[in-house]
Formats: sequence, C-alpha cells, structure tokens
Amino acid sequence: MAERESQIVLGLDPDPGALWPQAAEGSPGVRLSATASAVLAHSRALIDATAEACVAVKLQLARFEVLGADGRGVMGELADHARRLGLIVIADGKRGDIGVTAAAYASALFAGIDSPDGPVPGLGADLVTVNPLMGRDAVEPFILAARRQGGGVLVLVRTSNPGAADIEDLAIEGGGTVWERIAALVEELGRDGVGKRGVSDVGAVFGATAAEHLARARELMPHATFLLPGVGAQGGRVEELGPAFRPGRAGGLVSASRSISEAYRATGGPPERSAREEAERLREAAWSLAEEAVRAGA
Amino acid sequence: MAERESQIVLGLDPDPGALWPQAAEGSPGVRLSATASAVLAHSRALIDATAEACVAVKLQLARFEVLGADGRGVMGELADHARRLGLIVIADGKRGDIGVTAAAYASALFAGIDSPDGPVPGLGADLVTVNPLMGRDAVEPFILAARRQGGGVLVLVRTSNPGAADIEDLAIEGGGTVWERIAALVEELGRDGVGKRGVSDVGAVFGATAAEHLARARELMPHATFLLPGVGAQGGRVEELGPAFRPGRAGGLVSASRSISEAYRATGGPPERSAREEAERLREAAWSLAEEAVRAGA
Repeated sequence: MAERESQIVLGLDPDPGALWPQAAEGSPGVRLSATASAVLAHSRALIDATAEACVAVKLQLARFEVLGADGRGVMGELADHARRLGLIVIADGKRGDIGVTAAAYASALFAGIDSPDGPVPGLGADLVTVNPLMGRDAVEPFILAARRQGGGVLVLVRTSNPGAADIEDLAIEGGGTVWERIAALVEELGRDGVGKRGVSDVGAVFGATAAEHLARARELMPHATFLLPGVGAQGGRVEELGPAFRPGRAGGLVSASRSISEAYRATGGPPERSAREEAERLREAAWSLAEEAVRAGA
Repeated sequence: MAERESQIVLGLDPDPGALWPQAAEGSPGVRLSATASAVLAHSRALIDATAEACVAVKLQLARFEVLGADGRGVMGELADHARRLGLIVIADGKRGDIGVTAAAYASALFAGIDSPDGPVPGLGADLVTVNPLMGRDAVEPFILAARRQGGGVLVLVRTSNPGAADIEDLAIEGGGTVWERIAALVEELGRDGVGKRGVSDVGAVFGATAAEHLARARELMPHATFLLPGVGAQGGRVEELGPAFRPGRAGGLVSASRSISEAYRATGGPPERSAREEAERLREAAWSLAEEAVRAGA
C-alpha cells in the first residue's frame, strides 16, 4: 500500500451483457468460448487502465463460474495478469463450510493440492473472503491455508446490502448484535496473526454503506484490515470511512467495481480513460483520508 | 421419492487421496488431468453402485473446484450421469451474496445465461444449498432462478458441525435463536412455493447431528423439505430423524457421503458392494421411519 500510495481494490465483476466495446475483439491466443474470451479481454483492459491507481483486484467468483467450464481458466489468467502488475489478488467467493470442505475450498483458492497423480495448482489468491455463519471451524481451515503462504482471510462481518438487517443486525441476548459477535470472533481468530505493523492476517468485510457502525467495528477489531465494498453504485462514500484507517493506512481496503468500470457511461469518452480517472479520484480521496486518520491517531 | 422408495442422498465428496482402487483406471475418452480423471472414475463408480438405493446425488462443490480448470467439467459429467439414472442433482456450494452476484451463482448452478455471444449452459442442478447470513436479498435470487425451472433451494438453518454453536445457536433478544430466526425466514420465503403435496420449493439444511432440535425446526418450517447431512461419519443417526418426516415422505432427504463410500474399509470386499449395502441399509431405515411418521400423523 505504501509503495503504491493506494488502498483501492478494483472489483472484477464482469457482466457479459455490459462489457467494454473492446471486449468484442476477444482474447486471441487463448482457447475459450466467445463469451469467456470477451469477459477476459474486458477484464484485462480494465486492469490495465486502472492498475496504477490500485493496490489489489477482487475477483467476484460468481461472474466467472457462470462462464461454465472456461470460468476457472479466465480467473487464472486474470490473477496472473494482476500479479504481474504488482497487484494483490482477492478471491471473493464468500465460502464457508465444515472442516474438510473448507480446506478444499482454501486449497482451490490458495496453493492447490498434492494429489497421488501430481500437484494441482490453486488460483494463487493472496486474500479470500469467508462466510462465518457456520462458526469457527468453518473459518479456521482458511486461516491455516492462508498462513502457509503468507496470505490472509477476510471474514464477512457486516455486509453492504439491505438484507444485512435480517440476520447480521439481530440483537443478541445479553447485548450486542450478531455482527458484533462475529467481529469478536474475527479479532480472536486473528490474534496469532498480528504482524509487526499491528495488522492481522484475519480481516473483515465491512460494507461501506454501514459507515455509521465503523467506529464500533474498529473498537471490536483493532487489528483487522477492513475490506470496504459498496462505494459508488451501492451508495457508500469514501469520505465516511475514516474510522477504518485508525490503526494506519493498511486498516482499510476500499473496493469499487461498477463505479469504475461503468464511469464512461456518465462521462462519455473511452472507457479506459474514465475508469482510470475514477480509480485515481478514489485513490486520492482514500489516501488523504487515511493520512488524516494516521495523523489524528499519532 | 415414492417411485424409488428412497430419501437417501449420495454425497459426492471425493478426496483425491482416498479414491476407490478402480479410479486408477481413469476415465478414458474424456480430456482431463490425471487427478480429475481419477476423481471422475471414482465418483461414477460410486453413483453406479448406489443409484438404486438413492433418490439424489449431492455434489460438494469444493471437492471439484480444487481440481482447477477441470473441476467444472467433472461436475458436469457427474450431473449428467446422475440425471440419466433418474437421480435429482443437488449442488452443495452454500453460496450467498448480494443480488446481482447471487443471480450469477444461481445461473451457474441452474440454467446458465444468454450472453451476447450465445448461451452458456449452467450445471443444471435441481436443488442448490444457500447461505442466508447476508439476509433475504442474498437468498431470493436463488429462489427466482429455481422457480424458473421447477427446482428448489435449501437454506442453511442449523448445520451439523460443532461451530454451529458459535453463531447459529446464539440467543436473540426477545426469544429464540439465530437459527430459529433463519427458519422463520425460510418458511416466509417458501410460502409462494408450496405445492399440492404441501411441500415448498424452499427447504432447509438441518444437521442430523442436531436431532434434538428437529421437532422445533419442523414447527417453524411446516412446509420445508429438510436436507439432513451428518449421518454416519459425523455421528448423526437415521433413527433420530422422525420429526423431519411429519409432513410426509418428502419431508426429509438423508445425506450420507463417507459412510457410504468408505464402508468397504470396515467390511472388506469390493467397495461397490459395501457402498450398495450401506446405501440400502440407510434407505430401508429412513423409509421405514418415514412410513411410521406418516402413519402416526394420519
């Protein structure tokens, strides 16, 4: 983050019905269906246009799984491409399952497996999102796998959608809410993974649309990096994310998808230019805010 | 179910390090890596051995995703194979995400999408498991997609693992637990999908290891089919699942994975025979239990 002066995560969430015009050229040299080839071309162009302003890409796994047999290949190409440009790769699959199954998901997204017939490589993600509904033993296998390769885990705590009110916001007997209980679990699971900068390898997904809860979330999770989705299309504003950065610049990753890729529909002109400008605008806003938060805390 | 006199779901959860001996022959005629080819051969043999005693197969998506680029192809082959044998296909991915993302997951698992470059087929599952932590709007897109093709959704309510105590069992202010709140949501979302037999297209995943809560779960969800995992290796017993069948034989689907595929390690002899015998034993136990529950309720 310090090197790139950025906390911006480019969300890769390609809708095959709303790709950039250059996607029509496809991805020569890669054996893929026409749709997968177009999605790959679009996503590569989007990464190339915005890489300088970003610190990470976030692959929305659903959008690639819907490409069928070619989906995993497209994800792999994009993860490699992003890494070559120095970007962190976040696999946003929100998985969560019991022990052996969680371990298999973690292997698929991180380092792969050694099978009797030889190694099967994983996606090579640096960070993965995890759903904690099933509890501690559904999250721990991801943390173990992450630690084996210096990666991390981002646990859903309070999401950016209206439905977050249905379960996550329920008040618990004895005080607090379901999300606050999950936050306590995140802090506990991350305790052994706090590095020398005071940031843990167990972080939290916290909707930028729930900025009113950010100060409380930071109190409960002093060591977690917050992945903050929901800026832009969902109504979240960078300017409200101050408390995320209280422990320092690495305290928050600001994720934006459609507000970057679709910027050209409002501004006109080439999509690359509008995307680059919007990513840079977000970068500048988040970086200044984090600087302020760090100065205020010092 | 009535036709096959079975409520048994064969869980396909293949561990590449513990396949049946015949997996070594691989799957001739299919272009796959050695590991994927072995997993496919094992899983096909397992389906063939037990199909007569079962009503459905349940694909544990993690185990196929860990096969990398070949994973989706193997899943597709197995779903087709199961369908040809008259089995229902359950995609157990426990997905859950906001609107557009949930819709993409649903398309990937059900019917696929129409992209500008032509249709991309989905897995063609009949039922999918869904994680409700993110609330109503994370579940609804799956229900919409299921209804378009006469399929259904199985929502995680109370899972079979020890970690279920961490979040699902939390007591809510004003009474009840998180899982009971989810159960109420399941019943509400399923109201429009209740068919003439009184069973809804919105069902529940309810761990067979939590049989002490089954009567309460049935009270809260009178119209839901319960998918009951955790029989066998995890300690659940068919004999304790009576309340699931109160609304009739379609009230419960009993899922077993390792207890079927690994039966031969205890009994000796060919794995097919032991798997068939264990599946048949479970079928008989569940069917008698359901008959009793139906008679008692009549």
